[in-house]
Amino acid sequence: MNFLEERIMKDGIVKEGNVLKVDSFINHQMDIELFREMGQEWKRRFEGKNINKILTIEASGIGIACVAAQSFGVPVVFAKKSKSINLDGEMFVAEVVSFTHKNVNKVIVSKKFLNKDDHVLIIDDFLANGCALQGLIQIVQSAGATVEGIGIAIEKGFQPGGHMIRNLGFQLESLAIVEGMDHETGEIRFREQ
Amino acid sequence: MNFLEERIMKDGIVKEGNVLKVDSFINHQMDIELFREMGQEWKRRFEGKNINKILTIEASGIGIACVAAQSFGVPVVFAKKSKSINLDGEMFVAEVVSFTHKNVNKVIVSKKFLNKDDHVLIIDDFLANGCALQGLIQIVQSAGATVEGIGIAIEKGFQPGGHMIRNLGFQLESLAIVEGMDHETGEIRFREQ
Repeated sequence: MNFLEERIMKDGIVKEGNVLKVDSFINHQMDIELFREMGQEWKRRFEGKNINKILTIEASGIGIACVAAQSFGVPVVFAKKSKSINLDGEMFVAEVVSFTHKNVNKVIVSKKFLNKDDHVLIIDDFLANGCALQGLIQIVQSAGATVEGIGIAIEKGFQPGGHMIRNLGFQLESLAIVEGMDHETGEIRFREQ
Repeated sequence: MNFLEERIMKDGIVKEGNVLKVDSFINHQMDIELFREMGQEWKRRFEGKNINKILTIEASGIGIACVAAQSFGVPVVFAKKSKSINLDGEMFVAEVVSFTHKNVNKVIVSKKFLNKDDHVLIIDDFLANGCALQGLIQIVQSAGATVEGIGIAIEKGFQPGGHMIRNLGFQLESLAIVEGMDHETGEIRFREQ
């Protein structure tokens, strides 16, 4: 097991309905030293890639992306989930259908911060059905920029997002891939990487 | 002028209605090296304070708080703006009336992540009327925890939030305090610190 899998075993909580709660160290309270390690691991896995920008999505991707960005020495852009009054001018917009919430969200990035010369690493905390991630990829492609890779903290390997993204040819590096969980025993099985 | 004031002069854009846009380096695209410098400056200004946790609010506070947290070696908790399905169990809730948007928002933190032994530094990107900040202070106090200080990137000194927070006796350290702006000339005046 790697450092993140060990941490999930120690502090993650399995709930009914294949819910994995990691809110004590990832997406409500945040362990910054863990995020730093995640950044170093992505830096290793994306070695040789020419990355000049990290793209993430609000809210829980932002902390991971900002700390990880220090391993790459690049700025971070976060996509917003709905039209904000502070976003003027032109923007890239992707419509994202949420499986979980059964609604449609807009994912928005100002055109000022993505262009055809950008080589983008996309970072987010979770990958399940891949809805948000598809929106981010679509935005990078609308800008004519290049997706150099995708770094995910925790992938739910039993949901279709990861499979689909890999089939599209992207280098997707999930630091922990959960294959199955049992909320009665608390067991969590990870995919061998 | 300090490093942040210089950066605001260089890349901030003054818009009609006392709007200062800093979305190229603070709250959409984020300059992580700048955030690191901000963390070091807050560390200097809060020297001697016993801080074991940073509290911020989604979305644009998160990046600054996470990078700054490395100067303090503490975890970050971000408050959520509305009830999320991922937040189970008991939570601290503050109702915040927004001056700008003329509505009421809930600010929420799980009770698991704040308690009476916590000594909290609150961090956010902007302070204007102080509505969000009042919600965060209220939440820390509901937990019986101590507000050791408040670190703000940019305070609008001509709006009442900073004055009110200082009158309440809090150590508020805004790295740049804008006294006035002129959208026609682009002029920005800072308070001497």
